[in-house]
Amino acid sequence: MKLLPIGIIHTPFKQLEEMPIQPTGAIGVKGVVEVFEEFWAGLKDLDGFSHIILIYEFHQSKGFKLEVIPFLDLQPRGLFSTRAPKRPNPIGLSTVKLERIENGYLHIQNVDILDGTPLLDIKPYVPEFDSYTEIRTGWLEQARKNVDTQKSDDRFK
Amino acid sequence: MKLLPIGIIHTPFKQLEEMPIQPTGAIGVKGVVEVFEEFWAGLKDLDGFSHIILIYEFHQSKGFKLEVIPFLDLQPRGLFSTRAPKRPNPIGLSTVKLERIENGYLHIQNVDILDGTPLLDIKPYVPEFDSYTEIRTGWLEQARKNVDTQKSDDRFK
Repeated sequence: MKLLPIGIIHTPFKQLEEMPIQPTGAIGVKGVVEVFEEFWAGLKDLDGFSHIILIYEFHQSKGFKLEVIPFLDLQPRGLFSTRAPKRPNPIGLSTVKLERIENGYLHIQNVDILDGTPLLDIKPYVPEFDSYTEIRTGWLEQARKNVDTQKSDDRFK
Repeated sequence: MKLLPIGIIHTPFKQLEEMPIQPTGAIGVKGVVEVFEEFWAGLKDLDGFSHIILIYEFHQSKGFKLEVIPFLDLQPRGLFSTRAPKRPNPIGLSTVKLERIENGYLHIQNVDILDGTPLLDIKPYVPEFDSYTEIRTGWLEQARKNVDTQKSDDRFK
């Protein structure tokens, strides 16, 4: 399967080291999604949604290991139980707040994405599809209390 | 960007026409995710999570239109404001319930995915990253009340 970018994500984060690791640690951080003009017609009606799901390429992640020490923990975990960027298929996923759309530029908030990231897809965030209660989160159960203040470092370069 | 499947998703849905359109319409529907053996080490710790996000290829969707009439509506909407499978990059996204893992087979529930679908990635579902309140859902605001009973048909073949 071959993918082609439909846009570019612009953010304040020029380096992996200074980036929040998830949107909850990026509250208020603003970014702009530049959608290529040939896809603008597909943006109709999107401005009715307060949140959107961005699917993108972890373009600075090369290779992968099947066990990693995640930012939120001190011991190796299975890769698929983490959100680490080095994956067999380096696809990233972030739900962000959509502020407004201007001429194919999506102004977004709560951005945890590296500047210059190739955009692959946009989907509307719909709680009936995407939100669950009564959940368990394994090793993250304790660790996720620290997620808001944790920053990225160079471990996934 | 080139992607290679890391597994295959097995479900009761052999045809697009009989499929629920989202997991909420598929409550209790069981499926099995077969992860290829070379990736099994990456599944460690995943069984601690009650819900997982599957990223997969819409392998039966060819081509795309930038405006579509979604299952839940009667008028054309911008493609990126819908979850329609025919997209510039045909990447699917479903959060499912994880029942248990046995020898690289993930037994899942609430499946809205076509049988034989190529798996691209697995991510743990974490409410702090993936769940939002105080949201707006545009054209879906009224329509989504019907989402549980709506079935797929042949419009995206």
